[in-house]
Amino acid sequence: MKELKVELGERSYSIFIGKDLISSPKLFAKVIASSQVMIISNTTIASLYLENLLQTLAEFRPISYVIEDGETHKNLTVMNSIVTQLLENKFSRNCTLIALGGGVVGDITGFAAACYQRGVNYIQVPTTLLAQVDSSVGGKTAVNHALGKNMIGAFHQPQAVFSDSNVLTTLPERELSAGLAEVIKYGLIRDSEFFSWLEANMTGLTARDDESLQYAIERSCQNKALVVADDEKEKGQRALLNFGHTFAHAIETGLGYGSWLHGEAVGLGMLMAADLSYRSGWISENDLERVRNIVVIAGLPLMLPQELMNTNIRELMSVDKKAKDGELFLVLLNGIGNAVVTKDFDEKLLQLTLEEFSMMDGMS
Amino acid sequence: MKELKVELGERSYSIFIGKDLISSPKLFAKVIASSQVMIISNTTIASLYLENLLQTLAEFRPISYVIEDGETHKNLTVMNSIVTQLLENKFSRNCTLIALGGGVVGDITGFAAACYQRGVNYIQVPTTLLAQVDSSVGGKTAVNHALGKNMIGAFHQPQAVFSDSNVLTTLPERELSAGLAEVIKYGLIRDSEFFSWLEANMTGLTARDDESLQYAIERSCQNKALVVADDEKEKGQRALLNFGHTFAHAIETGLGYGSWLHGEAVGLGMLMAADLSYRSGWISENDLERVRNIVVIAGLPLMLPQELMNTNIRELMSVDKKAKDGELFLVLLNGIGNAVVTKDFDEKLLQLTLEEFSMMDGMS
Repeated sequence: MKELKVELGERSYSIFIGKDLISSPKLFAKVIASSQVMIISNTTIASLYLENLLQTLAEFRPISYVIEDGETHKNLTVMNSIVTQLLENKFSRNCTLIALGGGVVGDITGFAAACYQRGVNYIQVPTTLLAQVDSSVGGKTAVNHALGKNMIGAFHQPQAVFSDSNVLTTLPERELSAGLAEVIKYGLIRDSEFFSWLEANMTGLTARDDESLQYAIERSCQNKALVVADDEKEKGQRALLNFGHTFAHAIETGLGYGSWLHGEAVGLGMLMAADLSYRSGWISENDLERVRNIVVIAGLPLMLPQELMNTNIRELMSVDKKAKDGELFLVLLNGIGNAVVTKDFDEKLLQLTLEEFSMMDGMS
Repeated sequence: MKELKVELGERSYSIFIGKDLISSPKLFAKVIASSQVMIISNTTIASLYLENLLQTLAEFRPISYVIEDGETHKNLTVMNSIVTQLLENKFSRNCTLIALGGGVVGDITGFAAACYQRGVNYIQVPTTLLAQVDSSVGGKTAVNHALGKNMIGAFHQPQAVFSDSNVLTTLPERELSAGLAEVIKYGLIRDSEFFSWLEANMTGLTARDDESLQYAIERSCQNKALVVADDEKEKGQRALLNFGHTFAHAIETGLGYGSWLHGEAVGLGMLMAADLSYRSGWISENDLERVRNIVVIAGLPLMLPQELMNTNIRELMSVDKKAKDGELFLVLLNGIGNAVVTKDFDEKLLQLTLEEFSMMDGMS
């Protein structure tokens, strides 16, 4: 088992990465400070792992609350129902919430923990690769609003993150690929050595080699932890983590959430950002090919979906949260392992990139 | 005009106290960092002061959103509708919300600001004495849940507080008395000199003498600012600010919110806490009389309401947020100007106090 520290002063915490962590009572006992514990999960994950975690935590006599699976349930109504459970069970400010699930469960549990009695402890037990390498680390919590994703939320750091590689054995293939998109991202934006390692090991990762997965999770979390420690509230370099995301959000908005997985949209978004970087003369054709190759091997989409043929993607990009006073900022590559936030891109080149990826049906 | 600084590191801000502040464009311009400004108010206050504030802020072309008046509207649904307004008007992370109203408007606006895109700026323009001396200072924000008051919230500090003494001229008499209860509280818990000043000036305060009111606001905010600066997240001495509040919450819960004003319940709660302190041998009979006298002059209730004759107040006290694992902690007096948090009180004496205030109809 590996332990990584996210350094945030008095809000510091550890990420534990290893096999069968959710069957280790001692690990949890170290970070749970109170006797009131509630596990929040969704229907899919609960059927696979809830019983196991309840047994692991038996000494705390935890209660559990299972929400419906899916992004549409990440809303204020469900958050309110979590609070109802907490109040009906007389949970005090010293209680601990545990998020057992992917990004949706983690985000809404974290937000409920941020708001319940103005803030209680919570622990992340991410069960998707994407949540393990991205959303469970960094303290961003939120629910969706009818008019925008993640528009109601808080920065609230967990007490610990337990990333159990064993739960990835039951992860659907598309979700594995989606997680790998965020793994690739860390290589591209700030860790060229890791990117090279990924080029050599991507086949092992898609085959779910446990050792490779653990290393990829660890190195991804290391990268994210360093960025977050530098910029907890996203005022500067944390924005680099949004590499590929402005394109991705436009795709997701255009399709409606849920058609593509977030990581799938990010995978294509990164390729599109790399394409624009190449057209802008910032990276070589060879670098662009390296990005394309790894996206291919990870099993991610290479083209925009047919349904968006007649959609103005450029317009959808403008409503992104990163747009300030109407100006669009993009994260582009200045070489592999070196991303920059910029508004100095050529609109005509962006148009060429959008056309390049609009030619035919997109799922690889 | 007086300016008080609340010292909270990078979250420090100023409280401005004076006459006609809401007609001073320059004051607001100093603390508003962006061009997107939304004023949130309620129907009662909007009819009195919204036009005035809109004119003062004309250079920012602010928009406004008016919510229904009353504690029952401090909920997630109304908070969500504020977010809808923000999104429909394309408000970015750099926007500023302005709370123009009493505690309800301040709490819900502050919470919306805490959550919108994970945190935006807000300014408090409290229009009741209670909000000016208490809820607008310290960054506690919240909405109510059906099962409990202020159960969903955040600590989120404003950019500034503008306490305009002029708005107190239109404040209903009961609300003035309710605000004075919290003013008296500061004297009792940590500022005996201020308590003596209040004994000499309470008649002037109830007659709304502007100079006296400004001084009382300033001294109250000074006291609160010092407590908050020491203990922003309520882990220790900030609990002293809850003097009288465990009794008050029991009264409010028993009656249903809205029958008594919060400050009225606090006024009687302080007297009851003083009574228990006297019975416990911690303060003299003379001190208890001083507390009773000032509560009388402030126009606050002296007895529990008839409707609670058959209610078990002691039981209602146990569900207070300050109860930890079933144990009840109370804030009691160890002399005027010296409050302590304790669980070492005699249950029999508490019972005598409860009986003492249950003899007849309560409104003075």
